[in-house]
Amino acid sequence: MNVSLERYLPILDWSRRYTKATLVDDLLAAGIVTVMLIPQSLAYALLAGLPPEVGLYASLLPLICYGLLGTSRVMAVGPVAVVSLMTAAAVGGLGLVSVEQKLAAAAGLALVSGGFLLLLGVLRLGFLANFLSHPVIAGFIAASGILIALSQVQHLVGVSIEGDTLPELLHGLWLAQADINVITFALGLATLVFLFWVRAALAPLLERLGLAKRTASLLAKAGPVMAVVVGTVCAWAFELGGDGVALVGSVPGNLPALAVPRLDWAQWQQLAVPALLIAVIGFVESVSVAQTLAAKRRQRIDPDQELIALGAANIASGLSQGIPVTGGFSRSVVSFDAGAQTPAAGIFTAVGMVLAVLFLTPALYFLPKATLAASIIVAVLSLVDLSILWRAWSYALADFIATASTITLTLLAGVEWGVSVGVLASIAIYLIKASRPHMAVVGQVPGTEHYRNVERHKVITQPHVLALRIDENLFFANARFLETKVYDQIAANPKILHVILQCSAINSIDLSALESLEAINQRLFESGVRLHLSEVKGPVMDRLRRSHFPEALSGKIFLSHHLAVMELDEEDFVI
Amino acid sequence: MNVSLERYLPILDWSRRYTKATLVDDLLAAGIVTVMLIPQSLAYALLAGLPPEVGLYASLLPLICYGLLGTSRVMAVGPVAVVSLMTAAAVGGLGLVSVEQKLAAAAGLALVSGGFLLLLGVLRLGFLANFLSHPVIAGFIAASGILIALSQVQHLVGVSIEGDTLPELLHGLWLAQADINVITFALGLATLVFLFWVRAALAPLLERLGLAKRTASLLAKAGPVMAVVVGTVCAWAFELGGDGVALVGSVPGNLPALAVPRLDWAQWQQLAVPALLIAVIGFVESVSVAQTLAAKRRQRIDPDQELIALGAANIASGLSQGIPVTGGFSRSVVSFDAGAQTPAAGIFTAVGMVLAVLFLTPALYFLPKATLAASIIVAVLSLVDLSILWRAWSYALADFIATASTITLTLLAGVEWGVSVGVLASIAIYLIKASRPHMAVVGQVPGTEHYRNVERHKVITQPHVLALRIDENLFFANARFLETKVYDQIAANPKILHVILQCSAINSIDLSALESLEAINQRLFESGVRLHLSEVKGPVMDRLRRSHFPEALSGKIFLSHHLAVMELDEEDFVI
Repeated sequence: MNVSLERYLPILDWSRRYTKATLVDDLLAAGIVTVMLIPQSLAYALLAGLPPEVGLYASLLPLICYGLLGTSRVMAVGPVAVVSLMTAAAVGGLGLVSVEQKLAAAAGLALVSGGFLLLLGVLRLGFLANFLSHPVIAGFIAASGILIALSQVQHLVGVSIEGDTLPELLHGLWLAQADINVITFALGLATLVFLFWVRAALAPLLERLGLAKRTASLLAKAGPVMAVVVGTVCAWAFELGGDGVALVGSVPGNLPALAVPRLDWAQWQQLAVPALLIAVIGFVESVSVAQTLAAKRRQRIDPDQELIALGAANIASGLSQGIPVTGGFSRSVVSFDAGAQTPAAGIFTAVGMVLAVLFLTPALYFLPKATLAASIIVAVLSLVDLSILWRAWSYALADFIATASTITLTLLAGVEWGVSVGVLASIAIYLIKASRPHMAVVGQVPGTEHYRNVERHKVITQPHVLALRIDENLFFANARFLETKVYDQIAANPKILHVILQCSAINSIDLSALESLEAINQRLFESGVRLHLSEVKGPVMDRLRRSHFPEALSGKIFLSHHLAVMELDEEDFVI
Repeated sequence: MNVSLERYLPILDWSRRYTKATLVDDLLAAGIVTVMLIPQSLAYALLAGLPPEVGLYASLLPLICYGLLGTSRVMAVGPVAVVSLMTAAAVGGLGLVSVEQKLAAAAGLALVSGGFLLLLGVLRLGFLANFLSHPVIAGFIAASGILIALSQVQHLVGVSIEGDTLPELLHGLWLAQADINVITFALGLATLVFLFWVRAALAPLLERLGLAKRTASLLAKAGPVMAVVVGTVCAWAFELGGDGVALVGSVPGNLPALAVPRLDWAQWQQLAVPALLIAVIGFVESVSVAQTLAAKRRQRIDPDQELIALGAANIASGLSQGIPVTGGFSRSVVSFDAGAQTPAAGIFTAVGMVLAVLFLTPALYFLPKATLAASIIVAVLSLVDLSILWRAWSYALADFIATASTITLTLLAGVEWGVSVGVLASIAIYLIKASRPHMAVVGQVPGTEHYRNVERHKVITQPHVLALRIDENLFFANARFLETKVYDQIAANPKILHVILQCSAINSIDLSALESLEAINQRLFESGVRLHLSEVKGPVMDRLRRSHFPEALSGKIFLSHHLAVMELDEEDFVI
């Protein structure tokens, strides 16, 4: 009972070993993450096309839920760039006008997405996320980074455009050229330059000034916070709002009320597909961060429990007027580097965010949107890593096609098309490859018991024996291919009296393939040829024994291919 | 040039070797097939819910096209049961009222279906049909047989009902109970009994009367023809039409005009999906018959050329007011048994059918529909072989699920749902299995160089070495599964310093799996564990060399697993 409770509530496990030292570590990490999270949560709300408070709200209850249920010790949950972009696209797709409706749609998206995650976790279906291949994810993230950066250029230059795809965004910016606000642009550009400088040069500078490497690196992460403070002070001191610089404006200083978002049935239905995609993408991003960090400390995470924890976090976000959340890469790494020991760090971060909502919101009034946009652009440009295209190209054409189609479709048709087509393309390519497996006619390497491809090696073959090695599992998609290959060989070589299939690389034979083997056996027998198998694996043989095939086989099943060739060769002499 | 022309026009090849003996063989086979085809073509037109002449029309030009282009020597092309059922469902789905519109839709279906086949053939995509697994096809054919038989009961008892699924057909028959025509029922039942008797007892009787086995068997195939003749004569002599027995009525005695069916754009679009399904099902049925028969004579057929030939046949059928056609099992077997030598037999059959259309149609006026229905029921009941369910159940759960879902959905939701869901289910099941591959921790069988699963055998293991054999290709769907497995083992066994992955059963590693291997290598290295590979196959090693993985690997790549364990074991002693 206890074991199972601890499984579903990891807090019961780690809280028993909680010490004062752990508390200090967790509090320090939580403090640093909170300082990062305040500007990020505002920025990702902006990216999602929503008022800034939703970013703050999404950083309260979800963190507490993950802290109670999550298995990663350092994961920092909250709004993240890619998921916020997907939220913007999904909410935009509903064609809503009023801000209230958009808020309800975003919260609804979090709720449905959380429901999917929870369901997948309870049904232990986390492995389904594996059908998102690495090249598809990498291509999707890179293309999303481009879209995110481009979507923020409007705030950087003080115009307002609409669109979710590369052509739409470029076209919108082109049309809005004349409306550029010079002061906004100057402020945005300055922030951009400052943030790039912080990212590239601040940590080394601080180190040269005598700070420890870890401290220098953590301080350098506070760059966006400095930008926010300086930007806010400038906007207040020089009254930039009067010059047409867009400011965040008044942010409610109270905690969110708990409520189910008000949407009609048709809207819930429209949210289903985007919510599923957000759930899967968010889960994959979160789990890979969690696994990377856990492995460094030889800890383990449980993907199915992670689904439950992320599901609960999103449901909490949806019920408290937030947006979809997941475990983010940058904040989790900071939390890890700052020495977070348990999920309590996440709960302490949530407390810090509560204080921020209650006491800091008046100060956010003068924060320029251009500052937030600049911080988003700098953050996501590290995502735009198109080297995956080159890696895939040099490794395998199949992977390149999957990557290239994901990137192209994400940019041209939007995030939902990109990731869906990417997944389908990689599955289709895998199946098509498996449907045309590599097969080699093999012969004996002289003086050994080894058998190799006749086309690659100088080997000995017997005219009456066709020895065929199949380098793939046999299943419906390649069963008929095998039949055709064998019949073609037989039709081309009238001398053949024996066919040996070397099965060392076959891990499974399904019913279709079994029936093909039976058909081959029968048809060969009718034309005077016997079929033999060699080197059948244990589990495959167990399976074959459930059928009548071993008895129906016109030839024998040999333990080794060499034994088969030896015996059939002797037989030929007798004939 | 000649070779390529012969490839696309097989007639150029076989016609050069045509002799008087071949001509006699082909003419005899054509005569027998024509006699079978006349009642069958009428019956399958009835099954498709269309006037009888469309069956005759579909047996003229299509046979000539296949004769010119097909690679099978004995294939008898024309209307067949399952495809006619699918035609009935597709045409019924359009909700048309007038017979003219239904005729146009059926011809349009043949045209589009032929277009798909031709396209697949030209693009050499015939292998795509392999994604229809044997259990799905077997389940689909069995369930279709039940639907076909049930759909003919209305003609057998003289009522009229509508419906494409088991519940609809049963409900329709239940409601129509009161309208049963007793004379029709008596005639239908008598025909049914006669045909079953012919099928079971006539050939042995003829043999006992002194006929050769082959002749007896061929004569017994003429049972439906006898039934048709006797039924027609009875209906004429006793004026059964006046008693409410439905007759075939007047059939046009002229050849079909060539024309593109008149359909509007929306109708063409609606036909696309059913046409694709008909094309694929028809192709699979035809090609498996052709391969079975060709193998018996050690001949070969070319599936891509078969696509072209069947495509041309269906286009011809669509342009000459026919219905979708394919190579049928029963007539092809008869053609084979009757000694057909070349595709000319099919062309001669078409000539026979032309004569039938021109001179035999007046005699068909009095043919009772109940007689045709009885012949369909007897023909399709041999298709209803539900033993595939038991075979699948006893062999593998995955195959059983695919079969059972195909049968259930075909019966309850119709042919199109059944085959679509069956294909998707078998692909999903295969991928899910492959995503959770069998992996075994292996140890040394004492005194040998063999390594076996520690859970199945008494083997020697080293505490510092984790040796893992992976029994599946590594690709995106199982890459993360591998990572989790390795990390779990490492987290559970702090003593481990070396991990060896035995790769003898891995036929391919895609980019996702490569990245997982890189991640495993990196994370293990960071926690002080080295990663080694053993027994990597040639093609897989070639692929890995395209990446930086071999250099980045913290351990070595060993030719044999034993060498790896030996070396790492010695190293432990040094430590």
